[in-house]
Amino acid sequence: MKNNQVQFKYKALVQEFTSKIRNGSFRPGDKLPSIRTLHKELQLSVSTVYLAYSELEKSGLVAARPKSGYFVKPMSVFEIPEAPRTDPRPVHVTLSSMVASTLTDNRDSEMVHLGTSTPAPELLPVKALSRIMKRIKADEMPHLLDYSLAEGDPELRRGISRLSLGVMDGVGPGDIIVTQGSMEALTLSLRCVTRPGDVVAIDSPTHLGYLQLLQELGLMALEIPADPRYGTDVEGLARVLAHRKVDAYLLVSNFQNPTGALMPEEQKKRLVELTHTHGIPVIEDNLFGDLYFGRHRPLSLKKYDQKDLVIACSSFSKTVSPGLRVGWVVPGRRFYRKILGLRTGTTIAASTLDQYLIMRFLKEGEYDRYMRKLRGAVKQQMDGIATAIRRHFPAGTRLALPEGGSLLWVELDRTVDSLALFHAAREKKIAIAPGIFFSVTDHFNHFIRIGCGFPFTDRTEWGIKTLGELMVG
Amino acid sequence: MKNNQVQFKYKALVQEFTSKIRNGSFRPGDKLPSIRTLHKELQLSVSTVYLAYSELEKSGLVAARPKSGYFVKPMSVFEIPEAPRTDPRPVHVTLSSMVASTLTDNRDSEMVHLGTSTPAPELLPVKALSRIMKRIKADEMPHLLDYSLAEGDPELRRGISRLSLGVMDGVGPGDIIVTQGSMEALTLSLRCVTRPGDVVAIDSPTHLGYLQLLQELGLMALEIPADPRYGTDVEGLARVLAHRKVDAYLLVSNFQNPTGALMPEEQKKRLVELTHTHGIPVIEDNLFGDLYFGRHRPLSLKKYDQKDLVIACSSFSKTVSPGLRVGWVVPGRRFYRKILGLRTGTTIAASTLDQYLIMRFLKEGEYDRYMRKLRGAVKQQMDGIATAIRRHFPAGTRLALPEGGSLLWVELDRTVDSLALFHAAREKKIAIAPGIFFSVTDHFNHFIRIGCGFPFTDRTEWGIKTLGELMVG
Repeated sequence: MKNNQVQFKYKALVQEFTSKIRNGSFRPGDKLPSIRTLHKELQLSVSTVYLAYSELEKSGLVAARPKSGYFVKPMSVFEIPEAPRTDPRPVHVTLSSMVASTLTDNRDSEMVHLGTSTPAPELLPVKALSRIMKRIKADEMPHLLDYSLAEGDPELRRGISRLSLGVMDGVGPGDIIVTQGSMEALTLSLRCVTRPGDVVAIDSPTHLGYLQLLQELGLMALEIPADPRYGTDVEGLARVLAHRKVDAYLLVSNFQNPTGALMPEEQKKRLVELTHTHGIPVIEDNLFGDLYFGRHRPLSLKKYDQKDLVIACSSFSKTVSPGLRVGWVVPGRRFYRKILGLRTGTTIAASTLDQYLIMRFLKEGEYDRYMRKLRGAVKQQMDGIATAIRRHFPAGTRLALPEGGSLLWVELDRTVDSLALFHAAREKKIAIAPGIFFSVTDHFNHFIRIGCGFPFTDRTEWGIKTLGELMVG
Repeated sequence: MKNNQVQFKYKALVQEFTSKIRNGSFRPGDKLPSIRTLHKELQLSVSTVYLAYSELEKSGLVAARPKSGYFVKPMSVFEIPEAPRTDPRPVHVTLSSMVASTLTDNRDSEMVHLGTSTPAPELLPVKALSRIMKRIKADEMPHLLDYSLAEGDPELRRGISRLSLGVMDGVGPGDIIVTQGSMEALTLSLRCVTRPGDVVAIDSPTHLGYLQLLQELGLMALEIPADPRYGTDVEGLARVLAHRKVDAYLLVSNFQNPTGALMPEEQKKRLVELTHTHGIPVIEDNLFGDLYFGRHRPLSLKKYDQKDLVIACSSFSKTVSPGLRVGWVVPGRRFYRKILGLRTGTTIAASTLDQYLIMRFLKEGEYDRYMRKLRGAVKQQMDGIATAIRRHFPAGTRLALPEGGSLLWVELDRTVDSLALFHAAREKKIAIAPGIFFSVTDHFNHFIRIGCGFPFTDRTEWGIKTLGELMVG
């Protein structure tokens, strides 16, 4: 009888906490009341509370930290999305124009913005950049309206070179070419090392923009299975390279798009060594690298580059401003001249004014302050959205909570057609990105990508709830 | 005896005026004193003055205008530079990297800036753009830091569409794609209608940037002889097309770079008809079109486009600002989707802030006011430089004074090596562009291009004088 009572009490407690975690009373990272507190306040025996907490731990909802107590675990109720296991073949990319049209959703203020990878405009450093702009002196203006150097403003390149401290080795202002966002940096890099018809390896799933880019450059895509937590499956790549010719590898190394995967440093090293062995140039897009939630900024693949075969690209588009078109490429000695020639020949130079604003923003020390704030805000938004997903999406939903970036990659029930969901959601003014956008295969048709760049509000909660309803309805 | 005296007097008068025109006392466009005035003031017979003026008119220095008197003719002392007459063949373009490096001269404030095609920074609408910038409201900023639409800001496209009024027919905001300057517009257009290895016809001489662009895109250049006053030799092109495959024609239709040639409207029509017959897309770069010195803005080739085969490109780089990277392309129905896809895939969108500044500049009516001033300033600068050339360059120098744009194409003595002159001038801090930059042939080795975008000062005069000395020394 006593046993039954204990069992009943502890099960009630488990249920109570499960419900409170699911409805957001306790959010990821929150500490649960100590066993002693519950023992006192709820007049429960220590063993009842202990049993309940153990059960919650086993279910993956909470985790014990030695000498600290029990905490709500971020997302471990969900298993990690599955990575596809197939022998990939190069294919021509053809995307429907519908893909491009979805980019306009950002402009619709009534939209629930879960479709984009950029921070909300109101999170951007509006005040600091306004102040810098209004302080421009009359005698500076003529210079700001004139062409910039093709390689970019020297002072901005100094700033970017300081940002790369520790992330890659020995990069000075003279090693950097400023571009119009990281997309132009990637375009130039791909055009430098490939010709139309060549095969470019990409992660599977990969950034939608890469598929567009490969299509426009007439390149073949070879999708390499990638783990949604750790990125590129290096052994899988090794198997592919053993029997297929690959002309370049294009990837987001840190906080991948769409998965948010962070490649462990040891794995980055192995990836670079493997591509070195085959003489394959690696084009690294590190545009999310500075949006880390942990303590350390993850390193660039260029850090491990012994043969000058890694072309490192990045931009301020996912941090300071997408609209100021400022990115950069560190091509290395081998490719520097060719990439500078391509840039001069095709677009001359980046906007002088955009470069100036970012340069001052870096120089006045605003960047570090701002990034600390932005990282905190995006992490909080991501936690909020993940909690709402837990609350409103059907059981069986899976996701991995990334350690940086702004994207959640969510696996739905296999019966869900994410493209149909995308259209249904759009009618209700909810923007998401369907999994089908991120691969030339159909492996990800039951996935969606959720962007966490916008503040979490009641409307976000409603949006996630509505998505959940659309999935089962 | 009387006859001899008259002859002596009229010859002295001819010599006096010739010298005063050569030393700049009378500048191109200036009215000479009336016959009646000289008759009275110098106590010369009417017939003596009349004989002198007739002699000056015959020598090409002055021109009579009915009921207005005699005026200093711009440049007719020089014959028109010669156009090459050869059977052209397609060639691969390879430029030395030295070409790109000369673009940095613009930044050197000690330089005599005769090398560039852009207006001097101090002529740009610094005040108006500063004012527009300082008036930006706090609540507008988030939007200005966010991505623009791929096709460009709608309000800016409305402004551009109004600019095209009369210049081409039926162009609305929806027909325009905003690009990062006209060079990106040309890159997208070429990539839309060609593949590497294709043959692109260009004028001979042509814009240095085109040679760079063809090189970077792996395209073959086919140089078509062009008249330094009237541009493309349409009959010459017809002869070439009769036996050669050409995949696109790329040209500056109005105030060509480097010659300043303005194609007569009838000739534009013939050119479009000829390319229509062969189904060849024409990529028109109309970036100087608004810098006309006459009364009418010259028309776009698209005005004559019956088959939707003309892609019209332009920009604000040679007018409002080279540093604000804003150009545009009117691809027509046939190529619109492909060009928008290419632009979205490779560079996403133009700078939102740059687009906003130009949009406001147009909307507030500043553009028309500013352009009237700029046209006057550049014309005056060009006249000043042309006069200085007349004064300081050796006899035998030839040039045609263009009716717009900012460039003078000068033919020197055949013995002059313009590349050596370029290097010698650069050592003396004088920037010019040697003829060898503007062709893959060696037809123009004894030509130089002089940019007239900078105010004419004593230092300009010194620069031209020094160039003249370098040529003979």
